[in-house]
Amino acid sequence: MQWTKVLGLGLGAAALLGLGIILGHFAIPKKANSPAPSDLDLELLETVMGQLDAHRIRENLRELSREPHLASSPRDEDLVQLLLQRWKDPESGLDSAEAFTYEVLLSFPSQEQPNVVDIAMTLPPPPTVGPTGDIIHSCHRTEENVTGEQGGPDVVQPYAAYAPSGTPQGLLVYANRGTEEDFKELQTQGIKLEGTIALTRYGGVGRGAKAVNAAKHGVAGVLVYTDPADINDGLSLPNETFPNSWYLPPSGVERGSYYKYFGDPLTPYLPAIPSSFRLDLANVSGFPPIPTQPIVCSLGCPAHNLNGTLAPATWQGALGCPYMLGPGFRPDGDFSADSQVNVSVYNRLELRNSSNVLGIIRGAVEPDRYVLYGNHRDSWVHGAVDPSSGTAVLLELSRVLGTLLKKGTWRPRRSIVFASWGAEEFGLIGSTEFTEEFFNKLQERTVAYINVDIAVFANATLRVQGTPPVQSVVFSATKEIRSPGPGDLSIYDNWIRYFNRSSPVYGLVPSLGSLGAGSDYAPFIHFLGISSMDIAYTYDRSKTSARIYPTYHTAFDTFDYVDKFLDPGFSSHQAVARTAGSIILRLSDSFFLPLKVSDYSETLRSFLQAAQQDLGALLEQHSISLGPLVTAVEKFEAAAAALGQRISALQKGSPDPLQVRMLNDQLMLLERTFLNPRAFPEERYYSHVLWATRTGSVATFPGLSNACSRARDTASGSEAWAEVQRQLSIVVTALEGAAATLRPVADL
Amino acid sequence: MQWTKVLGLGLGAAALLGLGIILGHFAIPKKANSPAPSDLDLELLETVMGQLDAHRIRENLRELSREPHLASSPRDEDLVQLLLQRWKDPESGLDSAEAFTYEVLLSFPSQEQPNVVDIAMTLPPPPTVGPTGDIIHSCHRTEENVTGEQGGPDVVQPYAAYAPSGTPQGLLVYANRGTEEDFKELQTQGIKLEGTIALTRYGGVGRGAKAVNAAKHGVAGVLVYTDPADINDGLSLPNETFPNSWYLPPSGVERGSYYKYFGDPLTPYLPAIPSSFRLDLANVSGFPPIPTQPIVCSLGCPAHNLNGTLAPATWQGALGCPYMLGPGFRPDGDFSADSQVNVSVYNRLELRNSSNVLGIIRGAVEPDRYVLYGNHRDSWVHGAVDPSSGTAVLLELSRVLGTLLKKGTWRPRRSIVFASWGAEEFGLIGSTEFTEEFFNKLQERTVAYINVDIAVFANATLRVQGTPPVQSVVFSATKEIRSPGPGDLSIYDNWIRYFNRSSPVYGLVPSLGSLGAGSDYAPFIHFLGISSMDIAYTYDRSKTSARIYPTYHTAFDTFDYVDKFLDPGFSSHQAVARTAGSIILRLSDSFFLPLKVSDYSETLRSFLQAAQQDLGALLEQHSISLGPLVTAVEKFEAAAAALGQRISALQKGSPDPLQVRMLNDQLMLLERTFLNPRAFPEERYYSHVLWATRTGSVATFPGLSNACSRARDTASGSEAWAEVQRQLSIVVTALEGAAATLRPVADL
Repeated sequence: MQWTKVLGLGLGAAALLGLGIILGHFAIPKKANSPAPSDLDLELLETVMGQLDAHRIRENLRELSREPHLASSPRDEDLVQLLLQRWKDPESGLDSAEAFTYEVLLSFPSQEQPNVVDIAMTLPPPPTVGPTGDIIHSCHRTEENVTGEQGGPDVVQPYAAYAPSGTPQGLLVYANRGTEEDFKELQTQGIKLEGTIALTRYGGVGRGAKAVNAAKHGVAGVLVYTDPADINDGLSLPNETFPNSWYLPPSGVERGSYYKYFGDPLTPYLPAIPSSFRLDLANVSGFPPIPTQPIVCSLGCPAHNLNGTLAPATWQGALGCPYMLGPGFRPDGDFSADSQVNVSVYNRLELRNSSNVLGIIRGAVEPDRYVLYGNHRDSWVHGAVDPSSGTAVLLELSRVLGTLLKKGTWRPRRSIVFASWGAEEFGLIGSTEFTEEFFNKLQERTVAYINVDIAVFANATLRVQGTPPVQSVVFSATKEIRSPGPGDLSIYDNWIRYFNRSSPVYGLVPSLGSLGAGSDYAPFIHFLGISSMDIAYTYDRSKTSARIYPTYHTAFDTFDYVDKFLDPGFSSHQAVARTAGSIILRLSDSFFLPLKVSDYSETLRSFLQAAQQDLGALLEQHSISLGPLVTAVEKFEAAAAALGQRISALQKGSPDPLQVRMLNDQLMLLERTFLNPRAFPEERYYSHVLWATRTGSVATFPGLSNACSRARDTASGSEAWAEVQRQLSIVVTALEGAAATLRPVADL
Repeated sequence: MQWTKVLGLGLGAAALLGLGIILGHFAIPKKANSPAPSDLDLELLETVMGQLDAHRIRENLRELSREPHLASSPRDEDLVQLLLQRWKDPESGLDSAEAFTYEVLLSFPSQEQPNVVDIAMTLPPPPTVGPTGDIIHSCHRTEENVTGEQGGPDVVQPYAAYAPSGTPQGLLVYANRGTEEDFKELQTQGIKLEGTIALTRYGGVGRGAKAVNAAKHGVAGVLVYTDPADINDGLSLPNETFPNSWYLPPSGVERGSYYKYFGDPLTPYLPAIPSSFRLDLANVSGFPPIPTQPIVCSLGCPAHNLNGTLAPATWQGALGCPYMLGPGFRPDGDFSADSQVNVSVYNRLELRNSSNVLGIIRGAVEPDRYVLYGNHRDSWVHGAVDPSSGTAVLLELSRVLGTLLKKGTWRPRRSIVFASWGAEEFGLIGSTEFTEEFFNKLQERTVAYINVDIAVFANATLRVQGTPPVQSVVFSATKEIRSPGPGDLSIYDNWIRYFNRSSPVYGLVPSLGSLGAGSDYAPFIHFLGISSMDIAYTYDRSKTSARIYPTYHTAFDTFDYVDKFLDPGFSSHQAVARTAGSIILRLSDSFFLPLKVSDYSETLRSFLQAAQQDLGALLEQHSISLGPLVTAVEKFEAAAAALGQRISALQKGSPDPLQVRMLNDQLMLLERTFLNPRAFPEERYYSHVLWATRTGSVATFPGLSNACSRARDTASGSEAWAEVQRQLSIVVTALEGAAATLRPVADL
């Protein structure tokens, strides 16, 4: 063989071998040590969207709302079993599911001695205790049995949970919504409040606050009713209301918890397991100080019968007659002028077992990262809307994902945890106890918490409350899902028509609301600092001014109510399921976490601007500079933007999973950096320095806003001004600390 | 060409290509996507051990202790520059280094008006304020210039930092160590304490506590001296003391901080950056309530001159004469019986700049995991031992690692952060401000904190304080390093001769001490919950009973003192450098973190047993069950053991880096689960429910121990017994929560 041939063959062979080596090295992904970076699978996402079935949601709802399921009732326990059964189903269940039971303090009306509100003819002699006098009128104790579902033995009488028992009697006064200002107005009008019974309407202030405000003026008892102006767009006749429309029938009464805080009242900061330390009842704070009872509005109509002067214009309601202030009844009305109102409350506090049900789909790659999705299970009565609409969606989501899982066709990158919370209606008890029991595990590992409580308030538009980092994933999800209404809009495009704002970064976008403490997300965001969101379909505000859907917390919140009026066809339920489902998949399956931390910059900027505009001059007068806050916001903005750029750059290459994990940790843990358990020690659980309750009027950092509103009328150098400075430093430290966690991890 | 040839060539080509593909795929490690799991390199470890040079440590110490470098002094600032220069050296520096400056409240004696303690002949007339009367004896204000280093202008006068200024006068009483019991004993003896000056000796109780205890009895001022019995093994003559031996010369006076808490006094929980909110001085707590001054023991000798009865046997010291209680001087002594002691303290509080210096070696694989190693830089005078012995070691360690880094031969898997803290002597101020400023970043990412303050107290044996998870890495390191003493023992084998215990798991092992708040590890363990350790070489307790090395906090703590007496040849310094260096490398380079969480089980078991044995009956009397605690400890033990088994199993295979990261996170974050910022709200920074200060006598969980000791004499149902139950629940919740974080991450 010629040497040129040998050389040629040799060179060819070397070239081929070399090509092979190159192909082998670069073209075949290595499997052994690091799993290939799995990422969101858009095809799978489509499959899930397609499989989320409106009809099945409807059937879930029918079953869930078949019977009243008050927290800790036998039916509530049945639903615990239903959830466990679904989540352990071999065909469509999760990897595992378990119930966690707590022993918690609930409040119920007495079954033997129902709460009563009477009008009595004569004054009792002073030493007598308890309702006396000739009863001339007794209010309805229960709602009218309009659809056959309001009369069952498991329909709990309307009551104010945690209101103390007692039997006050007194002249009736009308106190509007029972705010501090309302009682001050009555005082200004010269009305003696000592020993009276205050009639208030729902709204304007938290339930329990009405009694707190009343008690400060010596009021002996509080009645609360729902005015048709606030819930029924003014309508109140039977033919205008359910079952003829979505409006509340005249006999409807809103139940609710009147406890100020959340979590089990006896075990703040400790899980309410049987062995936990429990406060002595005498040391429990946050219960209403005086007997309180919600009543039927037809009875409570202050228009018909009250004496005294005409109430201010903003106090007037929709009962079709002028609202008077009292005290007492007018001589020419239905009752004699000296008639007193007897309020008899026999509520009882009871330690009861209440369970959370948890289920998990184990993550394939990062099982220690949790996407947590939850809703409460307990209702006041049938609770078709609140909370079963959310639970019906939850069950459909877990069925679809569980089926894919059991078929072996899919397992998410991260773990997905489903939760059905107990005793939310009494004050977010199940979710709070859960966060207390598993504080560190959750805080270290939870990517985000998604709450769907009432899935559908109404069927006009999506409504999302959440912290800024979740905005982008919500937008991405909703842009890809068709809106249930007419036309071919996406949920996003429909949403932007109802709620929108002009973002300096993005232009016109749907606006997310901020998270208060209205549902189980509260302990996650405020106590644990976990990025959270609450998702629902809701009203067209041009069509109703209802404070909330009209049958809220009444015995009229039933399956038929939803099926006929709220969401016939269940397409809004389906839209919520798809939105939540897409968000869950994006959070659990995306290689890079879809949490955009730089979206916090807009919030911080707006808080800063509000502080500068509305507090700047005042602060300057007291020699307090906003300069360090400006610097801190700027540092945050720069660090967040730079992190975004690093992620974008990496996304273009094929980054190492460990490198992505490190970046994802920065994204996931950002929200934690805003927690400071020493910022508001008097506000139980509230530790998030950006989202704690704001009572001050300026829409800025809550600690700063509240401290300024308290300091405003004090002299420079007062304790109150020192607290302003302290709160300012707390925010600056949090923002500087947050920026430090967003910078490259090996920066000093 | 024949078809067989073509086929042959084709097959050959295909085979070559195939071989190439196989070689390329399997034989060449992929660089791009996932770095090969780097692990501890034993050869490199040997290199580092070999390069840590005793002579260079000695030269470092000479330079560091050349001049006094009190916190915030010009020389302290010079040393900041020295550190920056070393850590930025192109040949032996780190990746980056930076100084972080805080504005902190320090306390200094006045330079114009030195603190004075006099004995005056006559009583001043009542309205007079300030020292009056004929001065018949004036105490030494400074230490004797024995070696030429005690007389310089930068030698700060002995003083009690943070003691208030004031000029009390009164009869002298001897109050032993100034404990609560000591003052009660004086009271029992019928001695009127009101208006007296209490002479106390160092030891027995924290510096500031002496004044707190004294003030409760109306004492007007406190003097503190060092008794030769406590520090000098009874010796006190000039020829028995430095520079003739390691003992304290007669004129030596211990300086120190008398502040109760740690961290900058004006900015608790906030970093002391210039803009931070500062407490009004009137609102600062923790300073001594009355003027206090440390004095020379020869003056203070209560034996010579005091009146009254003989002090109890345990109060007697080594000044060679019977110690009397007072009050006042004996008529036949050096001073007349009505002579008063005038204490004039002119300390001033000053806002000063104090810097930390930080330097980092960026991790190659997990740069967001920090192994943090630190020591303070400031001293009271020359501070050759305290803290320069530690800083000399720190600089040698950073030189050796920095040189390897700059040569390009090594970069650790995780980041290594070196820290030189400012103003430790005033109350761990630099380190505390650092933890306040970077709370979240550090808490999320720090693997462990290693503290080497005084590197060498004496040259007999290693002494380590630390939390249980660090035990195993300390053992591994010390088994491989030769002990500096005679013979061929390892540091471990030498250590076990001095400090040992019988472990139920391991048999006889060296015993680690627990971490109090004696140096800069305190904020890391108590406030952040980071696994921490403190390393030093120390005494043979059979050869000295000295409370601490004799020249501690005096002007005699100089280079020559170390060079001649403490560690001639610097082999103990080298041993500490090697121990710390090996631990740093093991923590930063091991694939699996060498933190053995199951070693916490022994601690928990011993705390539980102490509770059962010493508190069980008492708790039972008050209907408090230890059952839930038993269960919680068992759950922790089981979870920790199972985690250990999972790690062992994985170590046998070739685990995925992400999988190891998840396990390492469980190990790293365990310590955090023991933090509860609401457990001891009155104990500033102390949040670790296992290591908070224990004042109760039973060696169990501190919250339980302390609460029981307060409740012991109260009736069942008291607030104090409720607190016992609360503390028990806090521990149970922490242990249950800790166990939950150790279980497989996808367990519910």
